[in-house]
Amino acid sequence: MDTEIAGPRRRGPYAKSAARRRQIVEEAYRVFATRGYHGSSLREIAAAAGISLSNLQHYFTGKEDVLLAVLELRDELGAGVDAPEDDEPFERHIVAQAAANERIPGVIALYSVLSAEAVTDDHPGREYFLGRYDTLRSEYEAEFAALRDQGRLRDGVDPALAAATVIALWEGIQLQWLYTPDRIDAAATLRAYLDLVLLSPQTA
Amino acid sequence: MDTEIAGPRRRGPYAKSAARRRQIVEEAYRVFATRGYHGSSLREIAAAAGISLSNLQHYFTGKEDVLLAVLELRDELGAGVDAPEDDEPFERHIVAQAAANERIPGVIALYSVLSAEAVTDDHPGREYFLGRYDTLRSEYEAEFAALRDQGRLRDGVDPALAAATVIALWEGIQLQWLYTPDRIDAAATLRAYLDLVLLSPQTA
Repeated sequence: MDTEIAGPRRRGPYAKSAARRRQIVEEAYRVFATRGYHGSSLREIAAAAGISLSNLQHYFTGKEDVLLAVLELRDELGAGVDAPEDDEPFERHIVAQAAANERIPGVIALYSVLSAEAVTDDHPGREYFLGRYDTLRSEYEAEFAALRDQGRLRDGVDPALAAATVIALWEGIQLQWLYTPDRIDAAATLRAYLDLVLLSPQTA
Repeated sequence: MDTEIAGPRRRGPYAKSAARRRQIVEEAYRVFATRGYHGSSLREIAAAAGISLSNLQHYFTGKEDVLLAVLELRDELGAGVDAPEDDEPFERHIVAQAAANERIPGVIALYSVLSAEAVTDDHPGREYFLGRYDTLRSEYEAEFAALRDQGRLRDGVDPALAAATVIALWEGIQLQWLYTPDRIDAAATLRAYLDLVLLSPQTA
């Protein structure tokens, strides 16, 4: 049963099957966020989704397959540490996205656990995170380089280093925020860094 | 068998028992780093240490007990994101410690996985990390405040925000370094941030 072919015109069993698959992925998301990838079992995910293990196995060949679907769902939701849309100013995007992330602590927690777990060589998410960090660093570096060309980057700031710094600071401060949400303001922390490295448009 | 009472004058079975306990903790360290806390079992740790599960249970009452011993060992080794000794200049300590951490990727990986996993309410490491972040932020804030009093903190930089920023940046950049050690320089990234917020002693 391949639910991927169910397009918008499909109805009946196909639409129902796609909805069920999506529901499993959402439950897996929560299970992984709580127990990590290695600590979770397909049996637990099936139980959380209110279906049998063999029913779940109609949709996914294994836990690895479920993880990849969870990471796709995360990308689809566009949450977490992210790249700006075409015409949104870079620094405004970063701060707005960091503020928006405060509404989705479960996603942030999942991402924190998986990105750390996936460092190990045999983790099925390793390639995903390797590619994600590479892509994000390239995109942010291009943004800082463009700001430099506008005369808005402080002298001596390296666009590549600033790119890695924003991503690192963002993920690190979100982890502190997960522990003590009343005492850490991730958006304000990122804004303070951007204020250090960027000159305001009028002074540039 | 309580190995905690084995003081420096004890020899024979006590010293041997303490050495065995230490060996189990070191193996547990490696198992947790690879599979996370939730993904590891006492049975795996016993197998890694080359002893039986029941033998391991002479030393530890459960997996939670082993985790706390692992976190104690980490503190004893003084590795990872750390506070400076009494008379070491703050910024020099940060950069030197970040460079030293490059020799212990396994410890950094363990810390990354555990600090993210332990966010969940029922994780036995949660209190440890809550306390650790609180202590580190207080210590770093005091260091930045002292630098401000020496006229060495850039105008407008908040000591508390800078403290949370250094810790977040440090942990975040170490995670990127674990993925691509040949492309990320954690010490240089931290130095670049400190160069932004601190004035050099002669210009202050």
